[in-house]
Amino acid sequence: MVMTSPPVELPTEARVVNVGLAAFADAVAAQGAEVVQVDWRPPAGGDPVAVLALTRLYGPRSLDIDAANAEVLRRLDHGVPFLVDVRRAIDVVPGMGERTLLHPGPRCAWAEVCDPLRRSMRAAVVAEGWAADIAAADALLDSAGVDLAAANEHASVVPMATALGPSMPVWVVDNRDGGTRAFAPIGQGPGDVAWYGRESPAAIDRLVFLREVAGPLLAQIVAQLGPIDVFAIAAQGVQMGDDVHLRTQASSNQLIRTMLPAIARLGADPRMVALAEYLAGNHLFFLTVAMAGAKSLTMSAAQVPGSTIVTTMARNGTTYGIRVGDLDRWFVTEAPPVAEALYYAGYGPQDAAPDIGDSAVLELVGLGGPAAAGSPAVAAFFGGSMTDAARATEDMAQICAAESSRFKLPVMGFRGTPLGVDLRRVVETGITPKVNTGVLHASAGLGQVGAGVATAPLAGFRAALLALGGG
Amino acid sequence: MVMTSPPVELPTEARVVNVGLAAFADAVAAQGAEVVQVDWRPPAGGDPVAVLALTRLYGPRSLDIDAANAEVLRRLDHGVPFLVDVRRAIDVVPGMGERTLLHPGPRCAWAEVCDPLRRSMRAAVVAEGWAADIAAADALLDSAGVDLAAANEHASVVPMATALGPSMPVWVVDNRDGGTRAFAPIGQGPGDVAWYGRESPAAIDRLVFLREVAGPLLAQIVAQLGPIDVFAIAAQGVQMGDDVHLRTQASSNQLIRTMLPAIARLGADPRMVALAEYLAGNHLFFLTVAMAGAKSLTMSAAQVPGSTIVTTMARNGTTYGIRVGDLDRWFVTEAPPVAEALYYAGYGPQDAAPDIGDSAVLELVGLGGPAAAGSPAVAAFFGGSMTDAARATEDMAQICAAESSRFKLPVMGFRGTPLGVDLRRVVETGITPKVNTGVLHASAGLGQVGAGVATAPLAGFRAALLALGGG
Repeated sequence: MVMTSPPVELPTEARVVNVGLAAFADAVAAQGAEVVQVDWRPPAGGDPVAVLALTRLYGPRSLDIDAANAEVLRRLDHGVPFLVDVRRAIDVVPGMGERTLLHPGPRCAWAEVCDPLRRSMRAAVVAEGWAADIAAADALLDSAGVDLAAANEHASVVPMATALGPSMPVWVVDNRDGGTRAFAPIGQGPGDVAWYGRESPAAIDRLVFLREVAGPLLAQIVAQLGPIDVFAIAAQGVQMGDDVHLRTQASSNQLIRTMLPAIARLGADPRMVALAEYLAGNHLFFLTVAMAGAKSLTMSAAQVPGSTIVTTMARNGTTYGIRVGDLDRWFVTEAPPVAEALYYAGYGPQDAAPDIGDSAVLELVGLGGPAAAGSPAVAAFFGGSMTDAARATEDMAQICAAESSRFKLPVMGFRGTPLGVDLRRVVETGITPKVNTGVLHASAGLGQVGAGVATAPLAGFRAALLALGGG
Repeated sequence: MVMTSPPVELPTEARVVNVGLAAFADAVAAQGAEVVQVDWRPPAGGDPVAVLALTRLYGPRSLDIDAANAEVLRRLDHGVPFLVDVRRAIDVVPGMGERTLLHPGPRCAWAEVCDPLRRSMRAAVVAEGWAADIAAADALLDSAGVDLAAANEHASVVPMATALGPSMPVWVVDNRDGGTRAFAPIGQGPGDVAWYGRESPAAIDRLVFLREVAGPLLAQIVAQLGPIDVFAIAAQGVQMGDDVHLRTQASSNQLIRTMLPAIARLGADPRMVALAEYLAGNHLFFLTVAMAGAKSLTMSAAQVPGSTIVTTMARNGTTYGIRVGDLDRWFVTEAPPVAEALYYAGYGPQDAAPDIGDSAVLELVGLGGPAAAGSPAVAAFFGGSMTDAARATEDMAQICAAESSRFKLPVMGFRGTPLGVDLRRVVETGITPKVNTGVLHASAGLGQVGAGVATAPLAGFRAALLALGGG
């Protein structure tokens, strides 16, 4: 007797689950059948080299990496940066030379420096007294008479197209637990200013004012107040609609109110009126204080071996560079445009210089893009509604490894802002950090012409991933 | 032949729509049947006298009322209050006598004055120099040696348990288009202060400081700056998490930053340090500026005949009074407790004085409760989440006739805050305004013991409705 299988019973109807490309689901639905679409994409867009690196970094090595990342996240989340002093750069910034200008982004030779940063450098050269005028400054820079160095390689960060000379005053910020100290220039304020790519007499005067008036007075004010908890102010700012990058109105006002008694005590100084006018007109006053605070944390994070968390993200208007974990090298790509921008009347994308500045350090510690959801002012750049702004935060959440325990978003149920950009997640999802930033004129030295959101190029992250996870 | 109707076809199943009391729907549902519940309540809770008055005010007279209300809303929404001066009350407040104390809420004889306000009055009497100490002040007040008057009847508003003497400095706020001028005292700040029901030496000293130091200096500062658009600052505050009542941190900081250059110009004055310390420590600095602004608008609104919009809402800790439209009379009920409150450690409802202060004028112009949805700090008093805070704004929307065109709520799609409390809607729905406010100790002179949300008693609104719409 021969055993036979029972007859196969075919189902009388079939339903379809489609994973991945929606076009297949659409085709099934068009035939009137039910279909469930699962939104799935192959990791790293199916790039086999990147997938292999991801497999290594998520696989056998993930225990070590996760431990390193946990320590990095602890440092980024729990380090407490204190503003402790204001000093001339030459006196405190490590490796600052007497003929050095620190610039944003990866290192960049004069020949490759973009137009707004060139103008800013020429203004700085005149303000430093190395040349009598802009033409002479240009000649000096052209003859390699000035050392150009990346601020990020000197424990410093500079916003937009800032060129920081040795005589300029810098905020000194200590991350005591982390044992790191970081620096950023006192902000130049809005208007006709070098950090916006201007080289006018007024822009040069502003630099001289910072050195001669603002720096010395702010040094006395900070000394009177004692150490100021930078991120306590930033945390209040986030509750009050600051992303603490594009928008620092609330944090600036809070810091200025904190400084008020010290200002009044120095009242006999006639230069104080000039400082007060500068403060009253400078809604971005807190920006560079926050940047120095963020840098002091990422420096501490970069001392942890073997992590996949991004520890530097900076642009010079020509190139966009990142550094990851404790790797002592940059991964550099071309600087992208600021894709989602609002322009001042009469300007448009054709006028825009590429993304520039070290301020993206803020996006590495839970501020800027990660805090967009809480900022009505920043929402304008994401489409106008708070829902649009929330999407920017959600995007960052997809590529971040944690949430901030100090920067809370009321509109998201007081959830913390996304914190700690994990290189693996960036390449896996193809989502790169969005950076809230200003937009400068590309060529005419007209200063700021808009503001918006720049998306980091993926290529640098892919290169870093292969360096970490390659065979 | 006899015509017969076709046989009635009964439905084979019945479904139930229940309008009103949910208990009926619950009973049907309990039997396993489908039921649709429509949330409807009889207007004015079915109160036939109130329904009759509502019928008149929504019926034949509604055309006139709607036209009057439209003009009132225009005045509340488009009047622009400017801070123009700081003066001694006796010199500018109409009807202010040399032995007068202005107090919050409806008029109140000494015998009926609540404990915190008594203490505040005694402190004011000593500060004015009418008595040497608190005991002598008490005797003077007890012998009717001081005229007590309702601030609201003197173009003024005073917060919490403030007693305003003739020598005290007041903000002078002009609503130019409306032709009205309103006054409010310079805020006493937090801590050991009379407006919180304290009569300590420090509380008296603070009053003297306001008269001798803060008033004269702020007068010079305001004179230097020129007219300051009060509600432009308030509108920025609403974007930054202020309800501009319980929370005025952002607006205060903004006003202080605006004042900074003028402060620096007066720098030679040694009293400036004391003012600066007072400003730096006073997160409610803007509160009374906003109150004077609001009062200048409600005064203009109260000149329009025949409206049903509430133009005064004020409490003295004993009674709660409202005035409606241009009716020159108060509708007074007992002052309620601050029902939804958070208390400082060690205190609770048993310690709380009833709701007190004129600051509810803010709720009449789209600030305070109507702006709760945008304030993370205020959300804590409504249950903690931003959704809870939004419910407070939604409640106000049900009883308001319009939305503010200047106070916008980002979290509600930049919708304007509810504006213009319509007496008819209050009685129709039984929803009364919620007022964000502080809580004082009831009896021990311990000052502020908490903060929360007070719900206005319905009875005063009902009485006003009957006065307007009675037979």
